[in-house]
Amino acid sequence: MKVGIIGATGYGGLELIRFLHNHPEVEKIELFTSSEEGTIFSSKFGHLLTIHDQALRKIEAETLSTFDVVFTSTPSGVTSTLLPPLVGVGPKLIDLSGDYRIKDLNEYEKWYKNPPAPQEIVNLSVYGLTEWNAGNIKTANLIANPGCYPTAVLLSILPLIKERLIDPQHLIIDAKSGVSGAGNKPSQLTHYSEMNENFAIYKVNEHQHIPEIEQAIEMFADARTTISFNTHLVPMTRGILATTYAPVLPGVTNQQLNDCLLETYKNHPFVRVVSDVSSLGTNRVKGSNYCDIFVKLDERTNRATIVGVIDNLVKGAAGQAIQNMNVQFDLPEKTGLDVIPLFI
Amino acid sequence: MKVGIIGATGYGGLELIRFLHNHPEVEKIELFTSSEEGTIFSSKFGHLLTIHDQALRKIEAETLSTFDVVFTSTPSGVTSTLLPPLVGVGPKLIDLSGDYRIKDLNEYEKWYKNPPAPQEIVNLSVYGLTEWNAGNIKTANLIANPGCYPTAVLLSILPLIKERLIDPQHLIIDAKSGVSGAGNKPSQLTHYSEMNENFAIYKVNEHQHIPEIEQAIEMFADARTTISFNTHLVPMTRGILATTYAPVLPGVTNQQLNDCLLETYKNHPFVRVVSDVSSLGTNRVKGSNYCDIFVKLDERTNRATIVGVIDNLVKGAAGQAIQNMNVQFDLPEKTGLDVIPLFI
Amino acid sequence: MKVGIIGATGYGGLELIRFLHNHPEVEKIELFTSSEEGTIFSSKFGHLLTIHDQALRKIEAETLSTFDVVFTSTPSGVTSTLLPPLVGVGPKLIDLSGDYRIKDLNEYEKWYKNPPAPQEIVNLSVYGLTEWNAGNIKTANLIANPGCYPTAVLLSILPLIKERLIDPQHLIIDAKSGVSGAGNKPSQLTHYSEMNENFAIYKVNEHQHIPEIEQAIEMFADARTTISFNTHLVPMTRGILATTYAPVLPGVTNQQLNDCLLETYKNHPFVRVVSDVSSLGTNRVKGSNYCDIFVKLDERTNRATIVGVIDNLVKGAAGQAIQNMNVQFDLPEKTGLDVIPLFI
Amino acid sequence: MKVGIIGATGYGGLELIRFLHNHPEVEKIELFTSSEEGTIFSSKFGHLLTIHDQALRKIEAETLSTFDVVFTSTPSGVTSTLLPPLVGVGPKLIDLSGDYRIKDLNEYEKWYKNPPAPQEIVNLSVYGLTEWNAGNIKTANLIANPGCYPTAVLLSILPLIKERLIDPQHLIIDAKSGVSGAGNKPSQLTHYSEMNENFAIYKVNEHQHIPEIEQAIEMFADARTTISFNTHLVPMTRGILATTYAPVLPGVTNQQLNDCLLETYKNHPFVRVVSDVSSLGTNRVKGSNYCDIFVKLDERTNRATIVGVIDNLVKGAAGQAIQNMNVQFDLPEKTGLDVIPLFI
Repeated sequence: MKVGIIGATGYGGLELIRFLHNHPEVEKIELFTSSEEGTIFSSKFGHLLTIHDQALRKIEAETLSTFDVVFTSTPSGVTSTLLPPLVGVGPKLIDLSGDYRIKDLNEYEKWYKNPPAPQEIVNLSVYGLTEWNAGNIKTANLIANPGCYPTAVLLSILPLIKERLIDPQHLIIDAKSGVSGAGNKPSQLTHYSEMNENFAIYKVNEHQHIPEIEQAIEMFADARTTISFNTHLVPMTRGILATTYAPVLPGVTNQQLNDCLLETYKNHPFVRVVSDVSSLGTNRVKGSNYCDIFVKLDERTNRATIVGVIDNLVKGAAGQAIQNMNVQFDLPEKTGLDVIPLFI
Repeated sequence: MKVGIIGATGYGGLELIRFLHNHPEVEKIELFTSSEEGTIFSSKFGHLLTIHDQALRKIEAETLSTFDVVFTSTPSGVTSTLLPPLVGVGPKLIDLSGDYRIKDLNEYEKWYKNPPAPQEIVNLSVYGLTEWNAGNIKTANLIANPGCYPTAVLLSILPLIKERLIDPQHLIIDAKSGVSGAGNKPSQLTHYSEMNENFAIYKVNEHQHIPEIEQAIEMFADARTTISFNTHLVPMTRGILATTYAPVLPGVTNQQLNDCLLETYKNHPFVRVVSDVSSLGTNRVKGSNYCDIFVKLDERTNRATIVGVIDNLVKGAAGQAIQNMNVQFDLPEKTGLDVIPLFI
Repeated sequence: MKVGIIGATGYGGLELIRFLHNHPEVEKIELFTSSEEGTIFSSKFGHLLTIHDQALRKIEAETLSTFDVVFTSTPSGVTSTLLPPLVGVGPKLIDLSGDYRIKDLNEYEKWYKNPPAPQEIVNLSVYGLTEWNAGNIKTANLIANPGCYPTAVLLSILPLIKERLIDPQHLIIDAKSGVSGAGNKPSQLTHYSEMNENFAIYKVNEHQHIPEIEQAIEMFADARTTISFNTHLVPMTRGILATTYAPVLPGVTNQQLNDCLLETYKNHPFVRVVSDVSSLGTNRVKGSNYCDIFVKLDERTNRATIVGVIDNLVKGAAGQAIQNMNVQFDLPEKTGLDVIPLFI
Repeated sequence: MKVGIIGATGYGGLELIRFLHNHPEVEKIELFTSSEEGTIFSSKFGHLLTIHDQALRKIEAETLSTFDVVFTSTPSGVTSTLLPPLVGVGPKLIDLSGDYRIKDLNEYEKWYKNPPAPQEIVNLSVYGLTEWNAGNIKTANLIANPGCYPTAVLLSILPLIKERLIDPQHLIIDAKSGVSGAGNKPSQLTHYSEMNENFAIYKVNEHQHIPEIEQAIEMFADARTTISFNTHLVPMTRGILATTYAPVLPGVTNQQLNDCLLETYKNHPFVRVVSDVSSLGTNRVKGSNYCDIFVKLDERTNRATIVGVIDNLVKGAAGQAIQNMNVQFDLPEKTGLDVIPLFI
């Protein structure tokens, strides 16, 4: 397979390169850029010295059409115009940005504050939450790869909503992310001396992942709801841990909650149901495509605490994108992704 | 004033020393220990070299009775037996442990898993949430200094409950703390290589600060409730940020919520109502006795997001303890505590 | 005293504000800026909310001439033209930048790559290494406050060179700094995700503090030498630890090395000679004006290992500047600076 | 291949597991322990859930003799008695501890303060610095895998000493390591709150890697010398950066120094000669088996600054051990180790 990456200089792009390097079916990886044509990639990213010493190439439809897969890992507002000419001309397209995730274009505009992609292209794109949508992913030409927060949240709560064990009408989702989620562009917020030893809340009730989560709850668990969702920055580089609070439906036990998760994911190698909370933490999935999930019923309040943990750059971005590519090409999901988390 | 500290080797104790060193009314500070009598304090804690080169003293009631104030900063289960003989014999007692916070001894035993202090002593102890209980603190002989999480939570939500702007029956409190909250004793959990770059949840629905928060809501805002409360460890040393989600009562506006906080704390120098969320973060209060609070109404869900931020070792422990001492001795609350946060 | 700060938005400036806030002789602090006139300071720096809510003022010679002291904490190349008109017109001037440190203007230009200040003003400026130059500081109108690295290095090695215990001709100085030394301006190097968990070397053999150290060795210890000096960035915010390797002169013992340091600094409260290496580390001085020093003879190689540890923003910048102000105004050196390090 | 690991619960052991998991020639990995027989490995290490759910096995010579390779990753003083019975009975032995590195047993005892292994076994062990000793490694039954610091130091300086470009008689080596080098056992030094934001020096002139480095300089570059060597702890988990200062021999140029490194390692895929210092840093090798090296002549002092950078747990331990296994089994050196560094 011949793979192109647009937006390789971002953290999602770097992680695509890291995993595709060890993917047994990938023969060739080329990197494309809108603005740094000709730059030797390893001169910008020293960790790739001797590994990716080739030059960045110009984005051209003709060239890209000869690839088997093209990943786009760009800021929002880019692929809405970049991708339409490439749809159906050859390569499978996997978009890591948010531009094709929201089916309702008004909602997209409201939350993203960018002009949306064409409705017909959005319509034929497939939401790439692998464990929940593999059937459609298999035949999709354009995949809207899920956001990092939605991945951690949805994998942990969807089974419980779908099986009607928790009430979807009072979901409170409190999410925390490492700083790499803010991307590679320097800013005052992410300046080391001011982010280090600082825990902060941001985009209060305003995160653009809110409509994505609500849409997926409707799509996969058949429930319409309005969620409370807030995001926090943790002074660490990688990792998301999302804590969801939901009332359980009458008579539901802790055992049922756990069984539901175990049953749902018994054939999904990347989702691990954790029973001992002391085994749960972002470093347990660091650098890997695992999503660890946990649920516990609080009998005092009759609410469940549901936790999802991922590496935001892997299962929350590049890893899930490659997992989707594997599904599209009928490869085992773990191909190229079967690495052990770093832990330390 | 002559001040004694029992438990000086803990982080709460070290912070007491740090602030009392600059307290203009404190003439003498002596350090007491149950097990390390005679140890030169600065040989254990190099940062105190040339500052506290004296030896640790043995805990003896007779000696302690000659002090004006005795702070106890010990693990739970210690002061329940240590303090009763000292009540009323001389020094004002300020207990930073949890042993005197819970009035209902069954609740104490259930959550702390230790035998409780004598009921009559617990009864005469005063809960030291300074901004809400100064009248009783002024005359108290034994102060139960609040826990770190309860301080951040209560200061941010009490005004809104008391003024009936939010519904206390559906409080979801998601709290995050720096690792110093786990104390100074090494463990696998707090081993640097395993805690660094790790964000984790712990004591799910089981934290002993739950009954303390519920009791204080009843005491100060006259509402009985059962809260959802979870705690997380952040890979940083200092700081707590607690995010509370609560339904607002019909017709309540964002302006009303903010005005209520501003009005409540207008004469309280250590509580700052923050209007711009980008000014909110644990490093904005680091090393200081400030509690920064924030509220925002989410009109989609009709829930308020309420945030409280403190330095867990200062406003959440030693700083508030000295603030209480100031109240007891009729000193301005800021005496010895008027320091600017470190920020970086 | 009425104090003005130019460059208050930098980290040196913020630390000046933090310490001057508690300085008993300082009545008024005003903040000046070249570009952000009128900005409410606390709207930029949330940690100062309710503490410094005043507006930044325009830099005007007339206004500044009415102050008792003016601190300048600006990037290099600014005060070389800003300060000359203010010399002798009223305020004591304390410059935290490097513009007045190097007496040889050719050297300044070579290392700083900026046009130098006028020679006559450089000539009358006094190098503010407090423990070594208090006599001249007392009467100086313009103080060139030392750099952060030179402070840590010089305080630890000067006594041993001056007393001819080590050979100044083979000094190898390997210095390490927290990231705050790189200032408050965001860059790729200091972007959180790329600086976190990264230890790096920078400016190999090219740091502009080299001529400052060599000049001070000549000035205070009467030895001309050419040093090897390299700097490294540590993924933490505050602190410098500088390790110097030097051959000891024949017959010199470990005891003599230590005695020399103890004797030199016996009346200097901010320099602490540490005998137990496990008490040495940047967190032992964090947030304080202490400089901890250590020496140990390696009998295998007959070289001494000499270590100096400071908080780069305090003893390496704002703290030493205030210490110098105290000397100029005949106040005890510790006035306003007598705080205990944070440790944790 | 059937691989056994003794000491799998240490960080070296965990990294062996991480890499062997993706080694194409390894069919079976079993974990052995002296004290936790029967423990399900993933119950101790959550990141291995679903990956290594097998029980730890008892260490028995008979069992181990059926394996192709046995790695030992134990504290010093263990394999000196554990390994002799296994030598020559079947498996290739690769010892990650220091017990077989020092040929002179008096030196071993002096620096390690443990009784040494039998001289005859030490004699037949081979020092596993892969790039410098592959010929002997190929046929060795027992490999003494190099220490982490020696690996970073030796790979960077050996070529320059061997080619007589630098003077080996005045080597000053200043090394810095992430905290994982201190192992997985909790202690006050590595307690998160006290190690975080702290940079410290330790084992001044006393590190047990000193004789290992001196021995290797003699072995591979034919020079006897006594080095100055100090070690520092960096508040990060992984990585070593070692800075060496050495006089260059008369007439040697910066170009010659760089060419020597490039020429030496041109066929060694894991050693990368970096020309741009801004591409050098521990995160550029994180999680990988690369060693990045850099040299620059300081013309002012005629000394070279030589830098070696590795991930202490990979090239400094488990990675190099597997690289050695590959050599022993005639596999390409990169087999199972060809991963891209994480960078962020």
